[in-house]
Amino acid sequence: MNNFQFKNPTNIIFGKGEIAKLANEVPTGAKVLVLFGGGSIKKNGIYDQVMSALKNHEVVEMGGIPPNPEYSVLIKALDIIKKENVTFLLAVGGGSVIDGTKFISAAAVYEGLSPWELITNRQPVKKGMPFGTVLTLPATGSEMNSGAVITREELEVKVPLGGPGLFPVFSILDPEVVASIPHRQLANGLADAFTHVLEQYTTYPIGALIQDRFSEGVLQSLIEVAPRIIKNPADYDAAANFMWSCTMALNGLIQKGVPTDWSIHVIGHELTAMYGIDHARTLAIITKSHYTYNFESKKEKLAQMAERVWNITEGSVDEKAKKAIDNIEAFFHSIEIETSLSKYTDKFEGTAETIEKRFKERGMDGIGEHKSLTPQDVAKIVTMSY
Amino acid sequence: MNNFQFKNPTNIIFGKGEIAKLANEVPTGAKVLVLFGGGSIKKNGIYDQVMSALKNHEVVEMGGIPPNPEYSVLIKALDIIKKENVTFLLAVGGGSVIDGTKFISAAAVYEGLSPWELITNRQPVKKGMPFGTVLTLPATGSEMNSGAVITREELEVKVPLGGPGLFPVFSILDPEVVASIPHRQLANGLADAFTHVLEQYTTYPIGALIQDRFSEGVLQSLIEVAPRIIKNPADYDAAANFMWSCTMALNGLIQKGVPTDWSIHVIGHELTAMYGIDHARTLAIITKSHYTYNFESKKEKLAQMAERVWNITEGSVDEKAKKAIDNIEAFFHSIEIETSLSKYTDKFEGTAETIEKRFKERGMDGIGEHKSLTPQDVAKIVTMSY
Repeated sequence: MNNFQFKNPTNIIFGKGEIAKLANEVPTGAKVLVLFGGGSIKKNGIYDQVMSALKNHEVVEMGGIPPNPEYSVLIKALDIIKKENVTFLLAVGGGSVIDGTKFISAAAVYEGLSPWELITNRQPVKKGMPFGTVLTLPATGSEMNSGAVITREELEVKVPLGGPGLFPVFSILDPEVVASIPHRQLANGLADAFTHVLEQYTTYPIGALIQDRFSEGVLQSLIEVAPRIIKNPADYDAAANFMWSCTMALNGLIQKGVPTDWSIHVIGHELTAMYGIDHARTLAIITKSHYTYNFESKKEKLAQMAERVWNITEGSVDEKAKKAIDNIEAFFHSIEIETSLSKYTDKFEGTAETIEKRFKERGMDGIGEHKSLTPQDVAKIVTMSY
Repeated sequence: MNNFQFKNPTNIIFGKGEIAKLANEVPTGAKVLVLFGGGSIKKNGIYDQVMSALKNHEVVEMGGIPPNPEYSVLIKALDIIKKENVTFLLAVGGGSVIDGTKFISAAAVYEGLSPWELITNRQPVKKGMPFGTVLTLPATGSEMNSGAVITREELEVKVPLGGPGLFPVFSILDPEVVASIPHRQLANGLADAFTHVLEQYTTYPIGALIQDRFSEGVLQSLIEVAPRIIKNPADYDAAANFMWSCTMALNGLIQKGVPTDWSIHVIGHELTAMYGIDHARTLAIITKSHYTYNFESKKEKLAQMAERVWNITEGSVDEKAKKAIDNIEAFFHSIEIETSLSKYTDKFEGTAETIEKRFKERGMDGIGEHKSLTPQDVAKIVTMSY
């Protein structure tokens, strides 16, 4: 096991009816900026629940944070914060709104020349304006971690930021919100959380027993809950397990002391930037090719996954590992997520070359758990995913 | 799944050589009271590592905190804190030293008449003097939770306290400390952590997928690592897994959203108070009788444990559940822990009646996950454990 540090101070408030607890969790006397996305929260009743809970707080609001939260939109919040003397941010949404809020949190107290430096300086963010979240879409785990990914369309990039200053003070997870999530978003959430675990687990054995068992447990829980939640998102019990699985998939715990990969995400981000494909679906596109291309270095963990997650006891390590890859793809298909780039765009030719070029330009010359995948390797993986 | 709240802000610093990081984790300018136990840390080099790391801090020390930390000893620390203007506590030890330090932390800032009121008022402790820990004995999980159990010999009681003010600011977990732990303490640590999971898992099904998988994962990890650590505590990889398993067994995570039992602990505490039997061994004494006596209400989770932890796929629910009980007992025996009270004391006759009387006197008329076990039930369980 590798040395590690783990601290996650976010206060999780989980369960039906818990949105009302906002009244006590948002600091008394705070001026609150409520941030949200396209307005679905006004249709499903969550907006009303939030505003009712905040009736004794001073509140301003900003909707319209898009999926793949866009820099030029996010920086508009900075004017509101200044003008309205906002002291606390409340993200009401899924990963995009929460990630966008994290960037705004950091930018609101940043003292440099431009908030974009928070991206370019690549330093851990040590402080931000305090913020809480009300999660409306289980998927990214952003509600219990300190990382974020934002988009800047004029540069065609999706870029990360994060640091110990960007944990939510609290996150309210009410599984009842799942009932009104469209099928497409449910499938995306399942695929996203599933791939988060894969990125932290499917590397090479390092003898970290707890981390492996927990990762396998999250995968098993997602597999068990997927058909139930797709069939009936109003199944509270299924929704609760779906929601908690997504949080545990990326709250930092399972990655401590073990190698992590994240190639699937790094490559997938390019597909979103180029074609606007949903983040989760880009992961489904890349996963099989990535594991097939890097079979030799990953087959031991893939075989372990086959044994423990799918109870495949027969066959050699290679055979089990191949079955694991097939089962991963079958999982995506079972929630109606396509796994080939050509299913999403007709203009896929040249994608590999474009991504290779971009990686070279940015000096991304070694990704993955061994930092050994070159832009040429990435191009081959992308080509395999057509 | 039940509603729950989860917040655990302790900063875990895990791995070989990490004790040196004390220098940065203890606040600059703090006056530190280092608390420890019987002095083994002076033999195994940990004391020297700690003092070396604190060479730029003002330090006073107090050794002699006994196993089952005794109230009359702990309150002596309050005089030192006052006289020396101590501002930060550092527990260097196992669960007893850390639990004792938690009581001292609470008592140091308590404004009532007597620190004993912290026990008798049964209120969550909201503030304490800040403290960190250097863990020297994996077992109790106290290094990453906010609970403690202390002893007051003159009243023959072991009593709990805890609350959000009693999380360690940081805990340093260096698995290298395991190499010098005596066999008896290693076995105790394994049994203690194992039973912590049982108390949070072996209740009744509530459909909490992640919590069940994680609990099963900790049990599997402890079972896998037990023979390795007993054979060779200097096996760093085994020690690291042992240590992290013990922390995860009782840092609050696996109990969220599910019913918990804790009868084994409540009854076991009486055996320690009466006979001075090691805490972990009292748990091993009570477990089998408790599960046998409450078989009907626990058999579904016991059968699940048999299937998932020990891969027992044949037989009825009753048969699997019985095998789980046998396997739990076999686990204790495998680490040379006896499971009958009569193996620890010749004077066991009358124990059940004494405990029944005490429970009645204290109004403890319903323990366990259903709050349904009466003092008479407890007496029967204890009798079965002779």
